[in-house]
Amino acid sequence: MNLNSALYTDLYQLAMGQSYFLKEKHKVSATFDYFFRKTPFEGGYVLFSGLEEVLDWLETVAFSEDDIAYLTAQGFNSDYIEYLKNFKFTGHIQSMQEGEIIFPFSPILTVTGSIIECQIIETFILNALNFQSLIATKASRIRYISGEEKSLAEFGLRRAQGYAGLQASRASFIGGFDYTSNVLAGKLYCIPVSGTMAHAYIQSYDDELTAFRDFAETRPVNCVLLVDTYDTLKSGIPNAIIVAKEMEARGERLLGIRLDSGDLAYLSKAGRKQLDEAGLEYVKIAASNQLDEHVIRSLKEQQAQIDIYGVGTNLVVGKENGALDGVYKLCSFNDTPRIKISENLKKMNFPGKKQVYRYMNENGLYIADAITLDHLEAPKTMAHPFETHKRMAIEYATVKPLLHDVMIDGKRVHAKKSTAELVQITKDNLSKLPTEHKRFDNPHVYKVGLSPELEALRDQLKKEKLMS
Amino acid sequence: MNLNSALYTDLYQLAMGQSYFLKEKHKVSATFDYFFRKTPFEGGYVLFSGLEEVLDWLETVAFSEDDIAYLTAQGFNSDYIEYLKNFKFTGHIQSMQEGEIIFPFSPILTVTGSIIECQIIETFILNALNFQSLIATKASRIRYISGEEKSLAEFGLRRAQGYAGLQASRASFIGGFDYTSNVLAGKLYCIPVSGTMAHAYIQSYDDELTAFRDFAETRPVNCVLLVDTYDTLKSGIPNAIIVAKEMEARGERLLGIRLDSGDLAYLSKAGRKQLDEAGLEYVKIAASNQLDEHVIRSLKEQQAQIDIYGVGTNLVVGKENGALDGVYKLCSFNDTPRIKISENLKKMNFPGKKQVYRYMNENGLYIADAITLDHLEAPKTMAHPFETHKRMAIEYATVKPLLHDVMIDGKRVHAKKSTAELVQITKDNLSKLPTEHKRFDNPHVYKVGLSPELEALRDQLKKEKLMS
Repeated sequence: MNLNSALYTDLYQLAMGQSYFLKEKHKVSATFDYFFRKTPFEGGYVLFSGLEEVLDWLETVAFSEDDIAYLTAQGFNSDYIEYLKNFKFTGHIQSMQEGEIIFPFSPILTVTGSIIECQIIETFILNALNFQSLIATKASRIRYISGEEKSLAEFGLRRAQGYAGLQASRASFIGGFDYTSNVLAGKLYCIPVSGTMAHAYIQSYDDELTAFRDFAETRPVNCVLLVDTYDTLKSGIPNAIIVAKEMEARGERLLGIRLDSGDLAYLSKAGRKQLDEAGLEYVKIAASNQLDEHVIRSLKEQQAQIDIYGVGTNLVVGKENGALDGVYKLCSFNDTPRIKISENLKKMNFPGKKQVYRYMNENGLYIADAITLDHLEAPKTMAHPFETHKRMAIEYATVKPLLHDVMIDGKRVHAKKSTAELVQITKDNLSKLPTEHKRFDNPHVYKVGLSPELEALRDQLKKEKLMS
Repeated sequence: MNLNSALYTDLYQLAMGQSYFLKEKHKVSATFDYFFRKTPFEGGYVLFSGLEEVLDWLETVAFSEDDIAYLTAQGFNSDYIEYLKNFKFTGHIQSMQEGEIIFPFSPILTVTGSIIECQIIETFILNALNFQSLIATKASRIRYISGEEKSLAEFGLRRAQGYAGLQASRASFIGGFDYTSNVLAGKLYCIPVSGTMAHAYIQSYDDELTAFRDFAETRPVNCVLLVDTYDTLKSGIPNAIIVAKEMEARGERLLGIRLDSGDLAYLSKAGRKQLDEAGLEYVKIAASNQLDEHVIRSLKEQQAQIDIYGVGTNLVVGKENGALDGVYKLCSFNDTPRIKISENLKKMNFPGKKQVYRYMNENGLYIADAITLDHLEAPKTMAHPFETHKRMAIEYATVKPLLHDVMIDGKRVHAKKSTAELVQITKDNLSKLPTEHKRFDNPHVYKVGLSPELEALRDQLKKEKLMS
């Protein structure tokens, strides 16, 4: 299946493209902003992910011969079809870095190019960034509550939304997970893979002890035994202890046991006691079964003795949300700022080509972001984007622009970042976000404001549109 | 990206595979059941989807040279690696048909083959069937409440979970949608594509009327104008009416207008009135913006004048659930029935190779399903699967088995069904499900029971395991 097809788009992009083409407007330059309006999970931030995949796609996207035949059969104009045969993306992309901490209403990524190119690529950009940012954010929340000392393994492929399982594994790793069970994702994105055993393995034996013995013999390294097939405390853990002792006699070490049902807090504490009493303090306890950041928080409160969390469904489908509401809006056409009017200020976009500045305090912690026009310096005061009577002076130690060139004339400006690099960037960025924005209950709202110049432009264009 | 890689699995499948291989158990025959425990959306049924994709994958799945190199680097045993080089699926699959109406706890699909093959393919089967069945079910609910006379277009690609957007479009179509905006899915699965226009198109013009005129001129067929960029009732619809009249003068017809914000019930009624007063009774009204089956139900109650519903995010991510909880459990090994014990009867599986019978009344409507052992006829009485004191005699007119051979020795038994055929099968099946199982509020629970023989086998194996 060729996912680098330019057919990975909505039909209306191609229909508008035909209209621009036939009216000879298709080469006019436009700028679109990618931004979102609402943080998922009732959280205080989003972790930006998916950029490298978008750049990969843009570098190679085209219509294959098959694709062209399909569009011809759909009745598109033949001159337009000729144009599409040579379609490629030749535009300019500015973006925040993958792994950046992002907030509602700021432009995260902007595309400048011919209007027809900008439209055809819209759908893939939204599809890739909305999902991966959602999952990276969820993963970072699970890492936040688990603490750095725990191991986190993503186990979600079987319940992931079809092929999205691949991108979910990548985004989970960038967001703070240590491992994935997804072997293809492991290979494609260089993520460490991990896996234990299933109930079926044990059921294929007449008894649990022989199953454990055989498994340990054939997997002396990284051996984790699943102990809940029959009775966790009376059968599973006692049998695991026997096998751990046999491994010790061979100079090997059992890595851990896994709990996959029952009361994980109770069983982990009782299991820890049994293991410790057998002198197996080094054997780790892994737990899985419908975990998410809220369950892990509760397990921590109960002082559950769990070293490794295996998280599946709730992570990879982004429960309770399922989608980040990112949009892609025209802000400039033919070098003229554009606006969409709405009775609701929040549904309007910010016109013109823009820059976002991030302000830090003397400890390097993030204080606020200001959106301004792209030729301006960082403002000293900013206005609330929607509650127009609110404005503030910004007191800060340092400031930096967040939008940088990542693609010029359809080519990457920098080498592709490895997943490992993105993990490090993410970690650094998250360390600079004050915890009041990370907490789960009523997180403090991070301040994002407009420079006086941008606010004035928005208000002027709104007035002009309403009077016309 | 090669999605037909056998690496599309969880690491533990390969780890268990190595263990079976080294212990020379890998060729022993096993049977696994795919089933789910809970209907999503608090609904009364699930619509089974994804089977044809699973069969496609199984017919071609293999480890590429790259994959083998990756596994070698992961430290797998070299003899095992040699075995994997020639891995293919050579087993036997029985399944309900794609488009069947399915219920909790019944085996939907069973795999019989060497234990190692059964394990390696597990993850893909779960990944494909869980997601597509979830989305097909959601789509069928939206069709149910909309009625047959409405047009339904799936618009979700931009908010879909990454690559899952492709499978979501396919499953939505099978579940009852008429169109997709997803052009690649349109091509791959032969789904009619549809699309209107975006706000950006209108913003690229100085005024809305010129934008509408140009669009209509370049898209005389299937032209739908988006009327909410500035002011729906005062600008959008009046301008659309002007353009519709100009089209009439050219012998063309405007297909419709689209509402994408504001109060859809109010705007559609007011818009219908404006169009009708202009003699444009034939111009349809399309609506989009966070629709799902509940919003559409409310719009119907308000007698909204909407002909075409465009449904995106809430459909393609399966809101409020995100995942069907399907599992894959060993029920037979070396021709001996197997069981997993749990304190919770619902967490146990039904042992042995099984058949499911569906009972119909004199009108062909579905009454109940009974699960029995695969060599037995349809039972006349059945027991509740978990509330063991409940049993019933089944009164019916006709009965049919639901599990049929679909793959033997790794080859399809029948030709691949087209998406169009699956749409028809689904429609026929849904027409036989009484509405009390389709309603949204407290749907009547469809009866699924166990034959006396299966119940006895389960209870006997449970007793043996608990005594051992």
